[in-house]
Amino acid sequence: MKPATVGIIGFGTVGSGVAKLLLERGGSIRRKTGLDIRLKTICDLDITTPRGLDIPPGVLTTDLNRILDDDEISVAVELIGGIVAAKDVMLKLLAAGKDVVTANKALLAECGPELFAAAHEQGRTLAFEASVGGGIPVLASLANGYLANDIRSIVGIVNGTCNYILTKMTTERRDYASCLREAQEKGFAEADPALDVGGGDSAHKLAILGWLGFAADFRFDDIYVEGITDLDVVDFRHASELGYTIKMLAIGKQSDGELELRVHPALLPSEHQLAKISGAYNAIWIDGDAVGDTMLYGQGAGQMPTASAVVADVIDMLMGRAGITFERLKLYPGTTQRRSVKPIEDVETEFYVRFQAKDSPGVLAEVSRILADNDISIASVRQTGMGQQTVPIVMLTHRAREGNLRDALERINRLDCIKGPSRFIRVES
Amino acid sequence: MKPATVGIIGFGTVGSGVAKLLLERGGSIRRKTGLDIRLKTICDLDITTPRGLDIPPGVLTTDLNRILDDDEISVAVELIGGIVAAKDVMLKLLAAGKDVVTANKALLAECGPELFAAAHEQGRTLAFEASVGGGIPVLASLANGYLANDIRSIVGIVNGTCNYILTKMTTERRDYASCLREAQEKGFAEADPALDVGGGDSAHKLAILGWLGFAADFRFDDIYVEGITDLDVVDFRHASELGYTIKMLAIGKQSDGELELRVHPALLPSEHQLAKISGAYNAIWIDGDAVGDTMLYGQGAGQMPTASAVVADVIDMLMGRAGITFERLKLYPGTTQRRSVKPIEDVETEFYVRFQAKDSPGVLAEVSRILADNDISIASVRQTGMGQQTVPIVMLTHRAREGNLRDALERINRLDCIKGPSRFIRVES
Repeated sequence: MKPATVGIIGFGTVGSGVAKLLLERGGSIRRKTGLDIRLKTICDLDITTPRGLDIPPGVLTTDLNRILDDDEISVAVELIGGIVAAKDVMLKLLAAGKDVVTANKALLAECGPELFAAAHEQGRTLAFEASVGGGIPVLASLANGYLANDIRSIVGIVNGTCNYILTKMTTERRDYASCLREAQEKGFAEADPALDVGGGDSAHKLAILGWLGFAADFRFDDIYVEGITDLDVVDFRHASELGYTIKMLAIGKQSDGELELRVHPALLPSEHQLAKISGAYNAIWIDGDAVGDTMLYGQGAGQMPTASAVVADVIDMLMGRAGITFERLKLYPGTTQRRSVKPIEDVETEFYVRFQAKDSPGVLAEVSRILADNDISIASVRQTGMGQQTVPIVMLTHRAREGNLRDALERINRLDCIKGPSRFIRVES
Repeated sequence: MKPATVGIIGFGTVGSGVAKLLLERGGSIRRKTGLDIRLKTICDLDITTPRGLDIPPGVLTTDLNRILDDDEISVAVELIGGIVAAKDVMLKLLAAGKDVVTANKALLAECGPELFAAAHEQGRTLAFEASVGGGIPVLASLANGYLANDIRSIVGIVNGTCNYILTKMTTERRDYASCLREAQEKGFAEADPALDVGGGDSAHKLAILGWLGFAADFRFDDIYVEGITDLDVVDFRHASELGYTIKMLAIGKQSDGELELRVHPALLPSEHQLAKISGAYNAIWIDGDAVGDTMLYGQGAGQMPTASAVVADVIDMLMGRAGITFERLKLYPGTTQRRSVKPIEDVETEFYVRFQAKDSPGVLAEVSRILADNDISIASVRQTGMGQQTVPIVMLTHRAREGNLRDALERINRLDCIKGPSRFIRVES
């Protein structure tokens, strides 16, 4: 059998994991797939730091041309991360006639349409299962198992750092800063956590999920993004008493002919499967009009789960299935219809709202009147800590337009009886 | 574009669902896949009972030859259920040069090796995603996303009837007979529920999961099967107090070079994701050595979820991917290595054991001695209801060989101080 020859660009954590699988799992992959995969070249700027792997001589190089110019290498795995350099490498690989596997969600979200177009033009294939949910086979499921459905919604916990921090805030009632610190100490958060806790990483993944799931074209910037950095631990206690758990969600929805695309923390009913996903795990909830509610769960990051998805894509390419998927399915921006994305002000959800109010008669009447003026109807109210100078009033609303809620809160915040800005968190039910 | 022409054999619940998707979802499928799928012929003995669908004239027939002899029909969907007739139809379809999609888990489990061989000989493709877990894309994930893994274990809740009944017994503490009756009234159990509650249906699905997941050949009869019919509601209370939930599981495991393949009720730690799967939902937990723990969740039965998987297979075939999967992957019995299955007596697990004992001094000493004689060590003991004539003693053991436990219980049951047969349930942790 002629070996199928593969090159890796980027020999970091995931790159080493992919190399490990290709070097050590060859026999098992050959038995199951008939493929004799040969890892011929690994390119990185640093080829001296030991990765704990027994790399055959001649495989490591700092020269990208060793891959670009090698006609034996049909599949290249791009794992260098970042955007500018990675994009340049990927375009070069495509131009050199390579099919490309990547885990680079930032690059795909920001430059996907351009890269898809380049690949289609060159008649090459892009595969990127590892870019969303690590080893969870969610993109393959959208491009195969769920194809007969019109997807109504996709709701994902797709950032392990956020989920780790929020799980800690929920179970230990410690504040955000302390939970972030612990996540950093344990390696669940980066030294600079902004891309994770700010929601950017979740948004990258939502872009990819939304494109494929809704077979829709939209811009990454159309996604509304709100991070978890301002969450107050007191709201975790109130939420829990009301039967809810706070999770960082990436939400895509069909909504009156438009799409909703938003990343933000939200209250989920505590008995919901997604509310039970804890720690650094990921899960993606998909509601299709035929299949109904489904959920895919697993480790959303980490060396070997991500490498598992990358190597699955390599196999899929070498077997010829990935090529069919990428060439024939109209799920990629450039082959799909442009869809309008609903501005966050027009999105309707239920809301959790907390006011800090003077403990005096008539406060609730004033607040309720302003909400009613803005077409917001109250589902439940809790007022605790009576007798203190200021008391929290916690409300759940019925479905309301977000713009209306924001207007109402602006007026409410100006009331004499309200102390400090009111807080709201969307409810996903 | 030349239409891709499909025939359906079996116009029951799932068959109608498939017809509905193919007839009403054509535009959306065409947009996403480029395929113009034409449902040309539906064959059933009963073509007069209304199915609530607008079937174009000339499509319905009672004559299978209308499909067998029609060279335009390249893909046939077999949904007649049962074994003898279905097998005959499937062999005829393959011999007539059709690729076949089926949801028939009983047929595949009992006659899979023969059918796979026939398909491979004819150069045709079999696809059967809908046979396990309804709309959950678990077989596709085993044949794609998890391929780089050696699968260590597969633990599934794959029978909605059992899960519905056990969920009721857990939450409402009602006995088996009453929960079964309710399941039948609500349509979650058949009038003759034996195949579901006896474990046979779960075993059918485990055979298919095991073949593909472990790339292993074994006989369906190698699977150990124990139903839920003898479960006593009192054990649900004890389990819950110990922090466990009782679930009907289909378990496949790599175990000292052999496979464990067993279907039986088991105690799961209540905080485990699988323990939280309630009602008629299914979930399959897969532990791969690279990807780690993953879970796929959704509706495991029902008209449209099952139809969703069938149509996904039809699309996969027409796109050419299913053919590559079936032809090239060595996951199907006949292309895989025969594996030895561990006899249930040799399987080691933890156990939950309940004795009904006279409330007299020395009982625990006698019981413990016999267990110790059989190499079974006790993890915890609870004795409740003191002062009554007989009291339950509930134990959790450490890992022990099942044969040893059975021997010990036989001896314990003969003790004067023990009233009535002791009960045990395996613990999955």
